[in-house]
Amino acid sequence: MSNTAASIITIGDELLIGQVIDTNSAWIARKLNELGIDVLRRVAVGDNKTAIINALDEELALARVVIITGGLGPTADDITKPLLNEYTGGKMMISERVLDHLKNLFARRNRPFLERNMKQAEVPDTCAILFNKMGTAPGMWFDKDGKVIIALPGVPFEMVSIMENEALPRLKERFTSGVLMHRSIITAGEGESFIADKIMDIEESLPAHIKLAYLPGAGMVRLRLTGRGTDKAIIDGELGNWQAEFATRLGKIVVALEDVPLEYILWKWFTENKKTLGLAESCTGGFIGHHLTQIRGSSDYFNGAIVCYSNRVKEKLLGVSGETLKKEGAVSEQTAIEMAKGALDALESDIAFSVTGLMSAGGESDRLPIGTVWMAVADKEKVKTKVFNFPYDRERNKEMAVSMGMLMIWKFVND
Amino acid sequence: MSNTAASIITIGDELLIGQVIDTNSAWIARKLNELGIDVLRRVAVGDNKTAIINALDEELALARVVIITGGLGPTADDITKPLLNEYTGGKMMISERVLDHLKNLFARRNRPFLERNMKQAEVPDTCAILFNKMGTAPGMWFDKDGKVIIALPGVPFEMVSIMENEALPRLKERFTSGVLMHRSIITAGEGESFIADKIMDIEESLPAHIKLAYLPGAGMVRLRLTGRGTDKAIIDGELGNWQAEFATRLGKIVVALEDVPLEYILWKWFTENKKTLGLAESCTGGFIGHHLTQIRGSSDYFNGAIVCYSNRVKEKLLGVSGETLKKEGAVSEQTAIEMAKGALDALESDIAFSVTGLMSAGGESDRLPIGTVWMAVADKEKVKTKVFNFPYDRERNKEMAVSMGMLMIWKFVND
Repeated sequence: MSNTAASIITIGDELLIGQVIDTNSAWIARKLNELGIDVLRRVAVGDNKTAIINALDEELALARVVIITGGLGPTADDITKPLLNEYTGGKMMISERVLDHLKNLFARRNRPFLERNMKQAEVPDTCAILFNKMGTAPGMWFDKDGKVIIALPGVPFEMVSIMENEALPRLKERFTSGVLMHRSIITAGEGESFIADKIMDIEESLPAHIKLAYLPGAGMVRLRLTGRGTDKAIIDGELGNWQAEFATRLGKIVVALEDVPLEYILWKWFTENKKTLGLAESCTGGFIGHHLTQIRGSSDYFNGAIVCYSNRVKEKLLGVSGETLKKEGAVSEQTAIEMAKGALDALESDIAFSVTGLMSAGGESDRLPIGTVWMAVADKEKVKTKVFNFPYDRERNKEMAVSMGMLMIWKFVND
Repeated sequence: MSNTAASIITIGDELLIGQVIDTNSAWIARKLNELGIDVLRRVAVGDNKTAIINALDEELALARVVIITGGLGPTADDITKPLLNEYTGGKMMISERVLDHLKNLFARRNRPFLERNMKQAEVPDTCAILFNKMGTAPGMWFDKDGKVIIALPGVPFEMVSIMENEALPRLKERFTSGVLMHRSIITAGEGESFIADKIMDIEESLPAHIKLAYLPGAGMVRLRLTGRGTDKAIIDGELGNWQAEFATRLGKIVVALEDVPLEYILWKWFTENKKTLGLAESCTGGFIGHHLTQIRGSSDYFNGAIVCYSNRVKEKLLGVSGETLKKEGAVSEQTAIEMAKGALDALESDIAFSVTGLMSAGGESDRLPIGTVWMAVADKEKVKTKVFNFPYDRERNKEMAVSMGMLMIWKFVND
């Protein structure tokens, strides 16, 4: 069986000079996938009429649904709307509903309603309007020769709102399609090759309609099983069996059987076990706290963090001894231990994690290699430490420290 | 004049089901741009031979340089290497240099060297190897009919390392090209339409070889001027004049004249003015601290943060009164004020910023609308507060709070 095929076209010079990272495409792809619509290609082109028309021609030849984002704003570099008007042989007309919405929006924001904002209420008469309650530029749905073109603004939260409230329900109604399901196995501590070797025979015996993919990340590899078919219950059952077989073989490196982030796994463990967590973050600057609090309900176990960027804060709020800082240095096993113990007290938590390291040149780089990071996890009885040497740049070293830190907490509580 | 044209092809089913956000393309585009190589298109396709070959055919017809990322790993879903071998009429051979590197790498990591890892030392004899010192899969450079195909692994830091050390120097040597330069104007506090109206006459008088683009973000709009030509000094001078003209017209909403993030602008102000900063973060969970510490040298002014996710931590470490928390609630102007003042003391900083809010349902959502966020900035003499009502989901509300928070600090110190 074949699913409905879609392509995504993103428009904007900023994408081609790399000023902006495209997060829209991934989100759209995920949502289409949930409806059983396969994304064949994603294409980014500049604010250039010929390039956009070529991309439209090409993608419409391959796919039944083409989703375009970007180029719908009120400024001169936004050309998608007039172009689609021409492409579909339409005529521009004012939408009263959009105009009302715009005037209300500007009044609420105490902004003057300008002539160029009037333009935003204009839409081709060849489209159905996809109402944008979050912003000014309406989305548009065109039917053209049995295919569908959907145009959305590039601002991510506006795009999301229009997709969820307007476009996805219509797509669902229009394209009933086959079943496409996923199952995941999240592993930690071993590399892609090791895993591939360990499960090779199972992987080779997978039927043609079930595929396995490897998605390596920092210290973790996610395995994704994808099943296709017509009967949801059958595919679901098959995927469940294969997932169990892989997971049994992989044993203790399996962290989770759903595609959830580590912060979710931690939230689950801590709330189920009614324990609280506190952090003492130096070199990560609060990034671990940020990750943990991405999960709704994290306040049930996460007491807080002390981001001790200066040594003075390490001493004053965490009770790290001046002696230790002087003799061992801020980036040392002993400092990490004292930070973790200090966080247990200061944040009154059952378990505390600390991290102190050198992310880029400067600070203690005269006596330690850049990328040296010490971590500690402690409860009332014991403390465990670990040292890392991350070889990357500042940003990547920070990300690695966050992943490895959360993994270390997970291992500590699962030991 | 016309620059060398490039296309970027990213490969991987994970891109089409939205499991992974493509950050590689933006990075590559930026680097090519700096060399004066224009990216015409970015295309993402799945782990599918026909789709990859079609994309190669199409992009090679348009561009002189095609950069491919992904699909070079050791697992069965990685098909780029044999495909490129066939596409260029090559024969696979073992590279001794890569083999040595792989054996060393596995020895250093105490991992067994597996048969499938041997495969990673194989490369088509039609390519020049782009050595990958950060990982196992080598990059490849193919010359084909006057065009260049560069294949790189999809793991971001490996890709970056190969591009910087191997691919970019060769591209620079090969494609001497015209001049392409950018200037930016970063504004805060007004929308895209307002700005467009204010500078319309200047924008309309821009010569054809200079383009203006609007990049709206949270509370800020970045304007980018792009100039093309043959003489670097002339283009640079012209761009400088236009930048000054736009900036003068826009007046006090201009935050910076370089394309730097707000955290960099804050770092500059605080270090130049020899002031220190402390944070009391509740609902942002440490995300502001993370942003500030993305800048190397942030330890020169950023003392740290108290992430007071629980009320107990607000009381104990920041001295927020129990009375305030009970009567006004954790999300209130008074709590924000006490948090900021508490952070001034606890973190011994010249200026302190606090944020407390309700990011998604739960907590105090019975008495406050979700998205309510109070912020305060204080120094020894004064305190300023502001309330926001963010209408988005948890993640977006957090991001907005970070942007608005940093903006609020910037406005406080620039008043």
